[in-house]
Amino acid sequence: MSAANDPTLKSWIEVSPDSDFPIQNIPFGVFKKGKGHRVATIIGDTVIDLYELTKRGYLTGVDANVFKQEFINDFMALGKKKTNKVRENISKLFKHSSRKLKGNDKDRKAMLHPVSKVELTMPIRIGDYTDFYSSRDHATNVGKMFRDPENALLPNWLHLPVGYHGRASSIVVSGTPLHRPKGQQIPADSKQPVYGPCRLLDFELEVGFVIGQKTELGQSISMDEAEDFIFGLFLFNDWSARDIQKWEYVPLGPFLGKSFGSSISPWVVTLEALEPFRSTSPKQNDPKPLPYLENKKKRNYDINLSVDIVPENGEAKTVCESNFKYMYWNMCQQLVHHTVNGCNVNVGDVCASGTISGPERGSFGSMLEISWRGTMPVDMPDGTQRKFINDHDTVVMRGFGQKKGVRIGFGEVSGKILPAIK
Amino acid sequence: MSAANDPTLKSWIEVSPDSDFPIQNIPFGVFKKGKGHRVATIIGDTVIDLYELTKRGYLTGVDANVFKQEFINDFMALGKKKTNKVRENISKLFKHSSRKLKGNDKDRKAMLHPVSKVELTMPIRIGDYTDFYSSRDHATNVGKMFRDPENALLPNWLHLPVGYHGRASSIVVSGTPLHRPKGQQIPADSKQPVYGPCRLLDFELEVGFVIGQKTELGQSISMDEAEDFIFGLFLFNDWSARDIQKWEYVPLGPFLGKSFGSSISPWVVTLEALEPFRSTSPKQNDPKPLPYLENKKKRNYDINLSVDIVPENGEAKTVCESNFKYMYWNMCQQLVHHTVNGCNVNVGDVCASGTISGPERGSFGSMLEISWRGTMPVDMPDGTQRKFINDHDTVVMRGFGQKKGVRIGFGEVSGKILPAIK
Repeated sequence: MSAANDPTLKSWIEVSPDSDFPIQNIPFGVFKKGKGHRVATIIGDTVIDLYELTKRGYLTGVDANVFKQEFINDFMALGKKKTNKVRENISKLFKHSSRKLKGNDKDRKAMLHPVSKVELTMPIRIGDYTDFYSSRDHATNVGKMFRDPENALLPNWLHLPVGYHGRASSIVVSGTPLHRPKGQQIPADSKQPVYGPCRLLDFELEVGFVIGQKTELGQSISMDEAEDFIFGLFLFNDWSARDIQKWEYVPLGPFLGKSFGSSISPWVVTLEALEPFRSTSPKQNDPKPLPYLENKKKRNYDINLSVDIVPENGEAKTVCESNFKYMYWNMCQQLVHHTVNGCNVNVGDVCASGTISGPERGSFGSMLEISWRGTMPVDMPDGTQRKFINDHDTVVMRGFGQKKGVRIGFGEVSGKILPAIK
Repeated sequence: MSAANDPTLKSWIEVSPDSDFPIQNIPFGVFKKGKGHRVATIIGDTVIDLYELTKRGYLTGVDANVFKQEFINDFMALGKKKTNKVRENISKLFKHSSRKLKGNDKDRKAMLHPVSKVELTMPIRIGDYTDFYSSRDHATNVGKMFRDPENALLPNWLHLPVGYHGRASSIVVSGTPLHRPKGQQIPADSKQPVYGPCRLLDFELEVGFVIGQKTELGQSISMDEAEDFIFGLFLFNDWSARDIQKWEYVPLGPFLGKSFGSSISPWVVTLEALEPFRSTSPKQNDPKPLPYLENKKKRNYDINLSVDIVPENGEAKTVCESNFKYMYWNMCQQLVHHTVNGCNVNVGDVCASGTISGPERGSFGSMLEISWRGTMPVDMPDGTQRKFINDHDTVVMRGFGQKKGVRIGFGEVSGKILPAIK
């Protein structure tokens, strides 16, 4: 077992028992420092400036300049052998028995910051972004609502991880408010579209992963290789304008119903940190996927996911408790399918899971499903109801795994909806 | 009239009458120089290194370093006021009566190169790429073939420029060969997909444009502003694997049927250079678009487009002669619609037109339409036939406008199909 994953390991930095960021996590993110940025990790509520850590000689074998960057891309591009070593060395430096940095007040002050005092920024310079549609319960729910309840899944769904290209430019970091989008919608019983603010604004609970190693055009990734290409994971809110999407999406897929914004959590949790939560993948026997997609290993992850709606100055309501393990198609299958045609991937490319719904209403990952197209509104603590998301509501998604006393999490992705711009 | 657009202007560089690159064009591209790259323009068959031109004092008011780059992005980001001035100054320097550079052998040799001696590379660092579907004849043909011949256009098509996010990583410059993609297809009369090389490989004749000015998330571009955001245009071959696409694309749109590669021509022709070819836009009265999309100006362009198929060591066959003026939705409408929901655009983002088909078979912009799903094969000069594209075929697209003795063109985008990788 690597020290980073030893469940008994404690840090000399205080970590509360319900923290997502014990010394076993060591995720990577970016914060603003003066006019520039610093790549960082976090233990408990303490953000650690990795540039200072390296420049001051506490972290060796890595060029400090990869941490004096606006994004973690250059760091990821070093490759897993090096980045895993960095995680390992960080965990050694901050473990309870290590006095090296703990005993140096000046250095500690220069590189450790309370998370409440720093501004976390977009961790990844995203190249291409792909969104999948890999939760069977979600696809079934959508199929029941909009197509044939008896044949909810389309013919291709069980044969391949359906996915589509998404918009990278409008992906923002947690905490960035978004304006309600405007666009064309088709009123019920009309053939004439109208223009106006989206009326059916929704979230989609997803988990994203980022590519840490590039391929060349023409190259395909096999199931055995796929994990080497996945640097880490984060929470992903794939905001959706249901009315805009419904009118526009035939025949070429979602466009403006999605591209007004997506939100990601600020810390990229490495695949290695999530190893203890690896869980059985669902049986895929009926039908069996084609050989290139065949999965013989545990490639799902038991990560608890939740969604809260928080009205302005109001009390939060948890509207969804789901789990990343519910995925029918796992990340490796998604990536293998993505490249089977020779499509190349670059460091910083992002793939998201698609809405992660579980089997019952309390675990559905979007308001579309939770309110069943608005027919079953959710009661809020303040006596109001929600079919979809209102102006000034904040949506907060959280995710963590817990096992043998160790909790490793993503923190949260939070986004507030502001009224449409006039 | 700006000097750059004066149709009587000649250069002291030799320009053949059928060249796409007279002194009125001044497009922008990039070539390899040693281990680096240079931003360049072209007159006739002569590539002009703009870094050397600026460093040696022939071009003022612009920082030479924007030309010592792998891509033209930093140059575009200077804004149209500056980039138009650069075009103007280049045309002055190379006009017939200008002796300044012509008389300096050493400088001329350092900055002028025969196009046959340089390697042209990807001109743009592409951020997001969006593909539209804006030719009415193309959408009608596809609808007739795959849906209802009596109701070929879907209900939304005449109300908005249908578009979808595409894959940016696999866009390559003219001359880059592509391997035939592999993937899942569904054989006729089967419900079980098979895995193998694409059997129905197609081109799509398109014109792309690149964004030269960014917006902020939440901002929408109006019809009056849209041209300020369009830096320039190029030819775009949206290669398509029809069998892969057909099986995968429901309900979220094309994915692997497109993402194995798209090809662009190496020279970005500015919107200003194409001004003489501005032509009337089609009437949009039935239905009238919503006010935000209403078009009151000439926003189409009369640009002749053609597609050749060239078998290996064989004679070319022109299979399509179309025109960019056939677009139902123009570039401004595409961009306005793209941002109506607040989606932000960045310098280097690319939008492509969708297949540009004219009204009859000879002007259809894809083999799918030309061969009408393979029912009307094309006779090649060597006695073979084509329903789709064979291994070792090269597809060459060309485009130019011609008026008052001046021809301004794109050059060509050429791509050869290699066999699928084993």
